[in-house]
Amino acid sequence: MSPSDKPLFDKVALIGVGLIGSSMARAMRRAGVAGHIAGYAHTPEIVERAREAGFADTMHSDLAACARDADLVVLAAPVGAFAQIAKAIAPHLKTGAIVSDTGSVKGTVLRDVSPHIPANVHLIPAHPIAGTEQSGPEAGFAELFDGRWCILTPADGTDTEALAKLRTFWEALGSQVEIMEAKHHDLVLAITSHLPHLIAYNIVGTANHLEQVTKGEVIKYSAGGFRDFTRIAASDPTMWRDVFLNNREAVLEMLGRFSEDLTDLQRAIRYGDGDFLFDLFTRTRAIRRGIVDAGQDSAAPNFGRNTEKSEK
Amino acid sequence: MSPSDKPLFDKVALIGVGLIGSSMARAMRRAGVAGHIAGYAHTPEIVERAREAGFADTMHSDLAACARDADLVVLAAPVGAFAQIAKAIAPHLKTGAIVSDTGSVKGTVLRDVSPHIPANVHLIPAHPIAGTEQSGPEAGFAELFDGRWCILTPADGTDTEALAKLRTFWEALGSQVEIMEAKHHDLVLAITSHLPHLIAYNIVGTANHLEQVTKGEVIKYSAGGFRDFTRIAASDPTMWRDVFLNNREAVLEMLGRFSEDLTDLQRAIRYGDGDFLFDLFTRTRAIRRGIVDAGQDSAAPNFGRNTEKSEK
Repeated sequence: MSPSDKPLFDKVALIGVGLIGSSMARAMRRAGVAGHIAGYAHTPEIVERAREAGFADTMHSDLAACARDADLVVLAAPVGAFAQIAKAIAPHLKTGAIVSDTGSVKGTVLRDVSPHIPANVHLIPAHPIAGTEQSGPEAGFAELFDGRWCILTPADGTDTEALAKLRTFWEALGSQVEIMEAKHHDLVLAITSHLPHLIAYNIVGTANHLEQVTKGEVIKYSAGGFRDFTRIAASDPTMWRDVFLNNREAVLEMLGRFSEDLTDLQRAIRYGDGDFLFDLFTRTRAIRRGIVDAGQDSAAPNFGRNTEKSEK
Repeated sequence: MSPSDKPLFDKVALIGVGLIGSSMARAMRRAGVAGHIAGYAHTPEIVERAREAGFADTMHSDLAACARDADLVVLAAPVGAFAQIAKAIAPHLKTGAIVSDTGSVKGTVLRDVSPHIPANVHLIPAHPIAGTEQSGPEAGFAELFDGRWCILTPADGTDTEALAKLRTFWEALGSQVEIMEAKHHDLVLAITSHLPHLIAYNIVGTANHLEQVTKGEVIKYSAGGFRDFTRIAASDPTMWRDVFLNNREAVLEMLGRFSEDLTDLQRAIRYGDGDFLFDLFTRTRAIRRGIVDAGQDSAAPNFGRNTEKSEK
């Protein structure tokens, strides 16, 4: 769509302008899908920083003012805050508006948000599978969603026109759109995202405890594998606390399986079962190839990290 | 050192020309530290591929021919093969030569290799902390060691001149050199490299087992964190089997601590202890900052992955 066409939405309200919200604003501008982009932040400092970054037409510290008259309202805050936000904006929602979100957990969005949504407003939860370990309004960039998946988890009976419109919106932002049930989403994400983050947080925490090995040594020799985990373990603490508290059941299920498998691996090392190790390590390679082939990562060695001495 | 000076070593023999060996050859050429680079590979196919890549002056399928007359012999093969290689090359080693290696475990190098080394030859184990998930003679590049650490673990009584020469060699290849005891090395690497690899292999294996979530979905939505683990879990299976079998004690010790910490984390999720989660996730962020500040990784979001649609 060229910017001269009538935009898909006259007004889009972004409740939260961190990495995801501010990337959406930038991608919306690139695509010309919003006549007016309103942003909300919960502290005056972030309102100010967002104004300086300039990706929104208006920035608000008042939820009602941000959501009022919006054709699309997107909750892009930690999922633990959704119930409170939904309650605050509900009386100000425009008839026919779409309310969506970007939360990493979808079951509890329906549970926490839908009781507050008026009958004449369409609630369609969404989850763009994209991100970096950076946070804040300066961290966003327009290309974040390009080629990445966005999962929509509409409840039964969702208005098909509103659903089609939200799909078009995310496609305009660069994403490929998939639709699935909230419960299945939470299971898929538990293994592809929540468990990896949990494990990364845990191993970095374990390293932090060690007394025989100093913190300086852990940092110095991190290029042997550890640094990749620290990147994930640098993700936003509030967001991730809320993810684990809100997808508890699926995360505990995946964690149970992970621990069982780890016990097998531990036993193989203890008893010197080299064949077990070699077989597992060969199978895991194939999954990697699948991800590179699917265009979800680059095959460049070392993630294309620049190994020049000048890198800092 | 300019290529016109007398090189540091007249002949260097690389026993193994995979990612590490072939990168060393390329870095040696760049630095002009070897008069002649001889390479050994254990299959005719790899000898041929290495000849085509052209980083060695001569390629051999005979260990004795490769090691004969060399001033520096570097074992750059999986550590499980070291005893056999040492035995085969021992009768052909030049008086005063240095024998070193690039293995990720150092305690067993002294155990497996030193019994075979003649008294007039200097054994100095080494471990360059650098690598990618790629393998094979085509995967190497001259810059692999730039700015990375190389740890030397000489036994007591090692000739200081030989040690100084090996240090100069690794510095010429771009590394910073550190000296420590083999036992301490194995503990440090267990947490910074071996445990991360073990965990990555395990989580990718767990994902591979799941029946409620398809392999296609795991691949499709891997950008949420999982793909970072698959990169590590794509590392060479033979090399990593040997690492775990040869650093069993330290790896099991670190794995025990990891599992204890994971149990605490699991309990916090089960009982909804958000403060525990938030505190841990905040502490792990600080470690990440330390790594970026130490120049061992880039702060570029997403590892500087190119998110353009053209990326494949």
